[in-house]
Amino acid sequence: MDIERTLAALTLPEKAALVSGKNFWYTAAVDRLGIPALMMTDGPSGLRKQKPTASAGDITDSVQAITYPAAALSASSWNTTLMRQLGEHLGEEARAEQVSLLLGPGVNLKRSPLGGRNFEYLSEDPLVAGKLASAYVDGVQSQHVGVSVKHFVANNRENQRFTASSDMSARTLRELYLRTFEIITKAAYPATIMTSYNRTNGVLNSQNRHLLRDILRDEWGFHGAIMSDWGAVADHAEALKASLDLEMPGKGQASVDEIIRAVQTGELDVGTLNKAVRHLLHVVDKWRPADTAGTYDHQAHHDFARKLADDSIILLKNHQNELPLKSATTGKVVVIGELAEHPRYQGSGSSHVNPTKLVTPLEALQDTGLQANYYPGYRLDESETDDQLAQAALDAAKDADHVIVFAGYPAAAESEGFDKNSILLPENQTDLIGSLAKLNEHTTVVLQNGSAVEMPWIHTVAAVVETYLAGEAVGEATWDILTGAVNPSGHLTETFPVRLTDTPMAPTFAQDPRHELYSEGIFMGYRYYDTHEMHVLYAFGHGLSYTEFEFTNLNIKQSEHGATVTFDVTNTGDCAGQAVPQLYVANHTSHAPMPTKELRGFTKIAVEPGETKPVTLKLTRQDFSWWRQGKHRWQADSGDYEIMIGQSSRDIRLQTKLTMDFKNSPAPVTDETYLTNVAWNPRLLELFKQKVIAPASQAGTSLLGATDADGTPTILQDRMFLNMPLRALIAQGVPADLIEDFIRAANAR
Amino acid sequence: MDIERTLAALTLPEKAALVSGKNFWYTAAVDRLGIPALMMTDGPSGLRKQKPTASAGDITDSVQAITYPAAALSASSWNTTLMRQLGEHLGEEARAEQVSLLLGPGVNLKRSPLGGRNFEYLSEDPLVAGKLASAYVDGVQSQHVGVSVKHFVANNRENQRFTASSDMSARTLRELYLRTFEIITKAAYPATIMTSYNRTNGVLNSQNRHLLRDILRDEWGFHGAIMSDWGAVADHAEALKASLDLEMPGKGQASVDEIIRAVQTGELDVGTLNKAVRHLLHVVDKWRPADTAGTYDHQAHHDFARKLADDSIILLKNHQNELPLKSATTGKVVVIGELAEHPRYQGSGSSHVNPTKLVTPLEALQDTGLQANYYPGYRLDESETDDQLAQAALDAAKDADHVIVFAGYPAAAESEGFDKNSILLPENQTDLIGSLAKLNEHTTVVLQNGSAVEMPWIHTVAAVVETYLAGEAVGEATWDILTGAVNPSGHLTETFPVRLTDTPMAPTFAQDPRHELYSEGIFMGYRYYDTHEMHVLYAFGHGLSYTEFEFTNLNIKQSEHGATVTFDVTNTGDCAGQAVPQLYVANHTSHAPMPTKELRGFTKIAVEPGETKPVTLKLTRQDFSWWRQGKHRWQADSGDYEIMIGQSSRDIRLQTKLTMDFKNSPAPVTDETYLTNVAWNPRLLELFKQKVIAPASQAGTSLLGATDADGTPTILQDRMFLNMPLRALIAQGVPADLIEDFIRAANAR
Repeated sequence: MDIERTLAALTLPEKAALVSGKNFWYTAAVDRLGIPALMMTDGPSGLRKQKPTASAGDITDSVQAITYPAAALSASSWNTTLMRQLGEHLGEEARAEQVSLLLGPGVNLKRSPLGGRNFEYLSEDPLVAGKLASAYVDGVQSQHVGVSVKHFVANNRENQRFTASSDMSARTLRELYLRTFEIITKAAYPATIMTSYNRTNGVLNSQNRHLLRDILRDEWGFHGAIMSDWGAVADHAEALKASLDLEMPGKGQASVDEIIRAVQTGELDVGTLNKAVRHLLHVVDKWRPADTAGTYDHQAHHDFARKLADDSIILLKNHQNELPLKSATTGKVVVIGELAEHPRYQGSGSSHVNPTKLVTPLEALQDTGLQANYYPGYRLDESETDDQLAQAALDAAKDADHVIVFAGYPAAAESEGFDKNSILLPENQTDLIGSLAKLNEHTTVVLQNGSAVEMPWIHTVAAVVETYLAGEAVGEATWDILTGAVNPSGHLTETFPVRLTDTPMAPTFAQDPRHELYSEGIFMGYRYYDTHEMHVLYAFGHGLSYTEFEFTNLNIKQSEHGATVTFDVTNTGDCAGQAVPQLYVANHTSHAPMPTKELRGFTKIAVEPGETKPVTLKLTRQDFSWWRQGKHRWQADSGDYEIMIGQSSRDIRLQTKLTMDFKNSPAPVTDETYLTNVAWNPRLLELFKQKVIAPASQAGTSLLGATDADGTPTILQDRMFLNMPLRALIAQGVPADLIEDFIRAANAR
Repeated sequence: MDIERTLAALTLPEKAALVSGKNFWYTAAVDRLGIPALMMTDGPSGLRKQKPTASAGDITDSVQAITYPAAALSASSWNTTLMRQLGEHLGEEARAEQVSLLLGPGVNLKRSPLGGRNFEYLSEDPLVAGKLASAYVDGVQSQHVGVSVKHFVANNRENQRFTASSDMSARTLRELYLRTFEIITKAAYPATIMTSYNRTNGVLNSQNRHLLRDILRDEWGFHGAIMSDWGAVADHAEALKASLDLEMPGKGQASVDEIIRAVQTGELDVGTLNKAVRHLLHVVDKWRPADTAGTYDHQAHHDFARKLADDSIILLKNHQNELPLKSATTGKVVVIGELAEHPRYQGSGSSHVNPTKLVTPLEALQDTGLQANYYPGYRLDESETDDQLAQAALDAAKDADHVIVFAGYPAAAESEGFDKNSILLPENQTDLIGSLAKLNEHTTVVLQNGSAVEMPWIHTVAAVVETYLAGEAVGEATWDILTGAVNPSGHLTETFPVRLTDTPMAPTFAQDPRHELYSEGIFMGYRYYDTHEMHVLYAFGHGLSYTEFEFTNLNIKQSEHGATVTFDVTNTGDCAGQAVPQLYVANHTSHAPMPTKELRGFTKIAVEPGETKPVTLKLTRQDFSWWRQGKHRWQADSGDYEIMIGQSSRDIRLQTKLTMDFKNSPAPVTDETYLTNVAWNPRLLELFKQKVIAPASQAGTSLLGATDADGTPTILQDRMFLNMPLRALIAQGVPADLIEDFIRAANAR
């Protein structure tokens, strides 16, 4: 398509039509100019292509598709290769369905475990979310299907998401919530980005010039299309002026008329409208649908869903090697919990998929060779204990060799559209786990849930396996891990706090319909818990294996603007496994507040028993940088850093100091420079003695006359005076002109 | 003085002279018009009148005066009667020294235990600080001596106090940091208020129109003079324009010339200058010095210093009635710690007093009748253990019946001018306490310190007595408590956290030279620890007695805009004592985030053994109010509250629900009103069915057609739709005109 010629040929009504959706799932077409409609569908973890018969708001009536693990689980793989393959699989399916734009991935950070949509987000850390999402985007787009990275930005709660403003400092926004999008935009060139419902610092995101125009377009150079979430635009002309290109789903002819009127009244410049249309034409041109629908290998895709879950399920606890259960030696197993029979394997809302082939844990149990009986134990759709069900389960558990309890939330508890108000499991499940653990010390809990939960029974059970929402292969993957057919290698991408009240935003989260104050600032997730040295249930990055890894030979090679970190990983156990080495950096240099550590690199590596493999991770200037609000830029400070390699943020195996020199010019001296900064700088100290102390003591200014034995003026050793800026010395009697002389001399170099 | 006539007679140079200090301790005089100079001196807890021979910055060379307990201790009395008497005593001394203005009280809130100046501040709670300070101000001013309430406002750190901006929300500022000043200003009419060094939300306090003019003058109606802290003004003309009246100490003739020039160039309006001079003339006229110096009864004042300390010292722990030590039955006592011999009884900086008669604990021991030996145990000015001193103390402690260890900080550790970076005691003292406690289970720790400390040894010692900085009668008062001559009745006005890292601002406090982000917001002190259900070492309001109190008969009588709370206090033990009942209110009504409880009343009451006394505390509309930022006003919401009576924020003895009706008008319905608010309001629900559901379902809008058995539309029961504002329904297919009709009808009443 000749974009500019097409643009020139479009009439105002046609342009006005293009910047709104034709309906819920299509962009507008202009047949006379060969501009086709693009079809888009929901589904970061599986295609949700609604059937033509479904009503607009009905999220369940969609064509069958593979249901992959929800992002909460797939991200726990920490595996960029698999995330790319996930994208490829989804892309292939989308192409088969003539879908041009896949509405995903969802990459918002998990700020509070109450967040209703956490299950479809990747992490509490922007690097993990950014790198995994970039791989996913690469994968989808390699199949000639575009993505829509969502939800831009700071959409971390669901309650009153249409009106609440995410209020935070520029530093917090830059270092955490924008950072994920920055990584993806710069690494993976997504076709589109979707704005979220919320406001940020008071301005509706879909109409936010600072976010869309200044940052996304001008600073990051994003050239794809910016579209709104469904119903996220309040004033369409304002949105276009802010750099939005496409309002979805649009209000039909009303939307078109609105834009025509705005141009006619001069409220909207036609140049602004043209910019949006140009972006859309580029997207239409690049991602237009294939002429015919294709096919894909359903079984192979189902197998990939299982493989991804295998690589992602997290072994949280494994007391005295309770797991794996080997069919030959394990003895009698009792499987308890309705979730084994009716598993929770995906979330609700726009990510809801109609699966091709659901394999429940109960079904998959048949293939394990284990000798096992099943008891529902509780009713999933109730929170009260069913005494009969519970008693039957307890009776069976009493003399079992191993008890496997499936626990989690019913579907109605976790969904797009509203937040949770507790992170405890339903009471009947909590009670049952407690009773089982008391009865049988070989009790394993298998969790199916969307985000972090409290585990008041944690010290009483033998093992815990976190499967989150594992997709349609949930049954197969769960037993792969439980039986050791697969050695677990998933690691948490979010912290599990001991109690909800331990979360920094517990008293304020999702309450005020107009404001969500991000008062914890950059101290979110492990950045908060680690800095406050708090007990956590499970740390960010935690995940056990059936083997052990040793880390040795940490080495750092500095370059001008970064460093290369190398170390060795040895599998010291007796089965093959995958390690997830995590590189954390601590800033000991900047005067700005800093978390005790921040993740700056990671990888996943397969190691055979007895084998040692080298790992190389690179640190760039950006990895040493923080957002300096006053100067509106990233800043990398020269000085000391600590480099740490760990298996979680709390399990650091190697660490060493690193001194960086970024050759920044020194800050100028002003009348607000503190005396302490003068006293600690040999050049400034000498100048100060010469320009201030000497003439002032000659003039008899008593304050400056006193010196100690080696001639150092007393005030340069008194903490109270050292903590005064130069201007305050004037109030203490130092002549102003001496201070001015000194400042002039200090800055003349 | 005829103020207006005097003002009219003043020349510009004379006016310019009046708005700066003549020197460090005097305002300027204009002899020809009979305007005298006012003398002012430091000293919230004792007069610090510098000798004429002392140099300006020398804070130690002052005339002798009574050294009363530092505010950290006297506030722990929770006794407004004694605080008023303290003011009277100080006022009498000031008058005797011809001092017109006493530079105190210091009323800033203790935000972090690291705050270098916490020892001279009253509390972490604005009500405690406000009520106690008001009583103190009343007392001083009853003696015809004016006060300067300091430091206005949000001066909660010392490091870089000249440049750091206290950045916080309007709500935090209003409900906490301004609130103390608001209470004092409205209750006690202080002669002057002193601005602090820091900025607030970016603007230097001394030049802050919003704080000085809009709030202090216009909103609160403060008519006294506003003066600066010493050297807190950067631009004098700007300060005058912001409503400051007096720059202290001024820069001599340079200050005068500066103002003359500003008026001449038109930068400063002479009307603005006149306003400041008018305020100053009023202060000079009202608080001018007596013609001759007076005298006061030194012994009686010393005795009051002892009485105040007696009423304030806090018994934090008393395992198995380790205390009191009765001379007749106690046996052999060993007193350990250099602080018994060289006590720390006051802080450093502007509150430093030259005491009339210091009685050390070692000296006061003689009068107790106890059989006791003393061992220094450690060197106060070192942190390393002196093995010989420690061993001698341990040897003596081994077979003692009771061990009393004095512990605390050396003077250099806590001062105005810089913050602490740890709240652990010096290592040699910590180690010694640990060793002593291991050796002898009857170990009591007596603390001398300026603010909350960590106590890693807390579970090993029998008793802990917090004396803070107890003033010149430190020795007598300490033994009064230890021997039971006085039954302790002090209660903490600040929380003692378990560890420094438990404080919400631990990672950020006093680091950035330009910014102090109050990220915890209104969740400061117990409002933070209680809401997050954190373990604390000792809770806000905690304090033990040698007797026990029972609380009964809670009764609440509601009035239109408040309530009267009554209950009974019974002394169930066998000695007379004083209880400190605290009234907390929990707001279960507002959508804005709320602490789990907030102190809204307190009293102190003496009760004989077996006696029952009634207590009445009043709640006003203000006590149910929170600061609504968007509307710039206090708001009291109708609905449920919980009323609690406790002996600390964690020791609640009585509680009950209270439903208030403040007759507020309902919020208008807009297109951002959530469907949930429509569904829960019978009138709106009926209207919505009539105006939207019925016509839409008639028109075939599928979303709105479905109903359940009793005719309720399905969308009014779906959490995802209930969490949509009216405008979002349009994107779901509801005709916009129906929504508009509904909004119009909803607001027409």
